[in-house]
Amino acid sequence: MSRADPFADTRDGDETRVALMEATYEALSKHGYADLTIERIGEAFGKSPSLIYHHYDSKDALLVDFLEFMLDRFESDVALDDGDRADAQLQALLDHALADPIDDDRYAMTSAITELRAQAPHDETYREHFTRSDRFFHDRITGIIERGIDQGLFREVDPDRTAEMLLVTINGAMTERVTTTKEATTRDVREELDAYVRARLLADEQP
Amino acid sequence: MSRADPFADTRDGDETRVALMEATYEALSKHGYADLTIERIGEAFGKSPSLIYHHYDSKDALLVDFLEFMLDRFESDVALDDGDRADAQLQALLDHALADPIDDDRYAMTSAITELRAQAPHDETYREHFTRSDRFFHDRITGIIERGIDQGLFREVDPDRTAEMLLVTINGAMTERVTTTKEATTRDVREELDAYVRARLLADEQP
Repeated sequence: MSRADPFADTRDGDETRVALMEATYEALSKHGYADLTIERIGEAFGKSPSLIYHHYDSKDALLVDFLEFMLDRFESDVALDDGDRADAQLQALLDHALADPIDDDRYAMTSAITELRAQAPHDETYREHFTRSDRFFHDRITGIIERGIDQGLFREVDPDRTAEMLLVTINGAMTERVTTTKEATTRDVREELDAYVRARLLADEQP
Repeated sequence: MSRADPFADTRDGDETRVALMEATYEALSKHGYADLTIERIGEAFGKSPSLIYHHYDSKDALLVDFLEFMLDRFESDVALDDGDRADAQLQALLDHALADPIDDDRYAMTSAITELRAQAPHDETYREHFTRSDRFFHDRITGIIERGIDQGLFREVDPDRTAEMLLVTINGAMTERVTTTKEATTRDVREELDAYVRARLLADEQP
């Protein structure tokens, strides 16, 4: 069965798929990965688990499809305006990624993503997804940095290298938030990243 | 039962505990968290699983004790020499944390730690461990930065904030390595961290 349209054999296939994805999101936020079952997704879906098993072999097959679905939506939703100032775009990206505090829904989803990513070391399909996902965010940041250099706002840094460091720092901070009770982590990282941007990137700043 | 000495009722309790911890390390490296069972740890231990169940209620209780055991050892093993130059200490820490390439054993252990950390969002004992562990590494880095300022090698940065960013960046890079197939991540992060250290920390550098 094609991943792209697992409900092609149902009427209103897309609507059914979207409804299942929403139910998966709801069940994942509520129960977390470890306690998630197809049965619980079926409850949120309001349909029999057997319908889900008809389309997916396992919880993990459904969850990887869910991750891809979310990334597809994100990719098409957040087209950047090339005309905007790159420094403002970078700040907006950091504001969103390192928002503090975050609400319960986002905390639950960050926890779930942390648990899903931890499947990647022993599961190739998860590894492929997080490779694609991290490449997308990496390329997004690289694009902002290249534009900032073109606009004369940023110094002539290596865009790939800079993007990679920003990406793993953001991912590390998000993981830290949901796996420890340390306080002020996100705020400290955000403030130090701002200092890093001033010292390394901004063309008109003296560190 | 006290976590500090779970084999107090056996003769040579410490030796038995060390042997079980070594068996846990071996089984965890070999099977990863998801496929690890008390039975498999028993195989590596060369003893009946029932002996392990006598001391630990579950796989997770044993694994948290294993993480604490490893951190205790690490804390006592790696006392820093306060007389060393802080800039060299920081480079040595980054050399170790972001070594590239790493051998199969270390790759397997990094994968296992990633999987164990992902238990923290829904398991308080894991969250307590990773809080303690991250505080230890945070304080270790903070100490190096404070010493570097005292030695006149580093600028008057905020040591806590700088340490927090370095810690989450290192953790993020280690996670990236075992959860994606992206290439050059660790090398790029290391090179950009070196540039960050020059731009933000080193007192005699112009960025």
